[in-house]
Amino acid sequence: MARVTQEHLDARRRQILDGAALCFARNGFHATSMQDVLKEVDLSAGAVYRYFSGKDELISAIVTEVLGEIREHFEAAARQSPPPPPDELVGRVMGSVLGGRSGMVHNGESVFPRLIIQVWTEVLRNEELSAVIHEGYSSVRGAWVKVVQGYQDAGMMRDDVPAESVARTMIATAQGFVAQMAIFGAAPVEVLQEGLRGLMSMGNPDTRT
Amino acid sequence: MARVTQEHLDARRRQILDGAALCFARNGFHATSMQDVLKEVDLSAGAVYRYFSGKDELISAIVTEVLGEIREHFEAAARQSPPPPPDELVGRVMGSVLGGRSGMVHNGESVFPRLIIQVWTEVLRNEELSAVIHEGYSSVRGAWVKVVQGYQDAGMMRDDVPAESVARTMIATAQGFVAQMAIFGAAPVEVLQEGLRGLMSMGNPDTRT
Repeated sequence: MARVTQEHLDARRRQILDGAALCFARNGFHATSMQDVLKEVDLSAGAVYRYFSGKDELISAIVTEVLGEIREHFEAAARQSPPPPPDELVGRVMGSVLGGRSGMVHNGESVFPRLIIQVWTEVLRNEELSAVIHEGYSSVRGAWVKVVQGYQDAGMMRDDVPAESVARTMIATAQGFVAQMAIFGAAPVEVLQEGLRGLMSMGNPDTRT
Repeated sequence: MARVTQEHLDARRRQILDGAALCFARNGFHATSMQDVLKEVDLSAGAVYRYFSGKDELISAIVTEVLGEIREHFEAAARQSPPPPPDELVGRVMGSVLGGRSGMVHNGESVFPRLIIQVWTEVLRNEELSAVIHEGYSSVRGAWVKVVQGYQDAGMMRDDVPAESVARTMIATAQGFVAQMAIFGAAPVEVLQEGLRGLMSMGNPDTRT
């Protein structure tokens, strides 16, 4: 019995988090009320408040979860050996970030990018969440710096630029593309990969593949 | 007399917009009250409401202005002939975007990146502002596509990738770097430029400069 109850509790918690995330993605953390969340998850206030003391706790849980997921996707991509070139690496991260939240669909489009850019603004105002994103980013950057050093050691990339700068720039392409998807609508990840391949070809004017 | 009055009105309006933008950059559109704005600009409610009917009108004015500025910086960079390579182009845009709001400093750092990412979330909820950013982005993308076609026509970039994808990716690097500055603090634009130079060198494994 105890196990069934725990499973039930976990499933219910998951249901609340997913419904709330969908609400937040659509309307933002501040414009969404607990009433909106209750309506979305189709549960009573009593049922929801058993798991979360209020909107702030719900926001905290969702932001922490989203940041953890994204960190894991970035780190997993960097763990491949040998590390794939930037267009593949970034493509894989974007694919897994977007695919990992397949339930977050509204009008046929993933609303996860909308949630992500709202998470960015939320961490500005909350020290605890800010610490979570700082730690995650520092760890991701470290992993991606190693990948870039791998490119440089293998002679695939000029080695007179700091690996840290390239790592930050690759991460920025993914972040910027997420912002574009949030604001301007879904786009195939291939767009970003093609763009990177174009940029990567510029070192030598005669380089064509 | 009439001219002096108009100048005075304009200056006062500017003062309110700048003070409000600083408040919004620090605390977000939703967590900032009109009281916060009045305190920041050191004016009475009567003086401020003479220019703006309320917070929504103030938000609208600031978002529209910020989007207009950014659009102009992106388009100005693309107007140079011949267009500079991506690292210079993106560096110039970032420099002028950040430099154009030199007054927006808090604790010695530009808070403009914080304002920008909050503008992104604000346009999600407001059809009118969404139309402004869509139109601006479409125009910027068009200008940057021409730059990329210039690279391709000059044999500086492989021409088997869509120019549109490369334009979007270059814009994404700037957007992602802005997000990083907002969340993790100021960073020299050179970081992004070095990163782009690293990526640009990858087309040919033997390319070193």
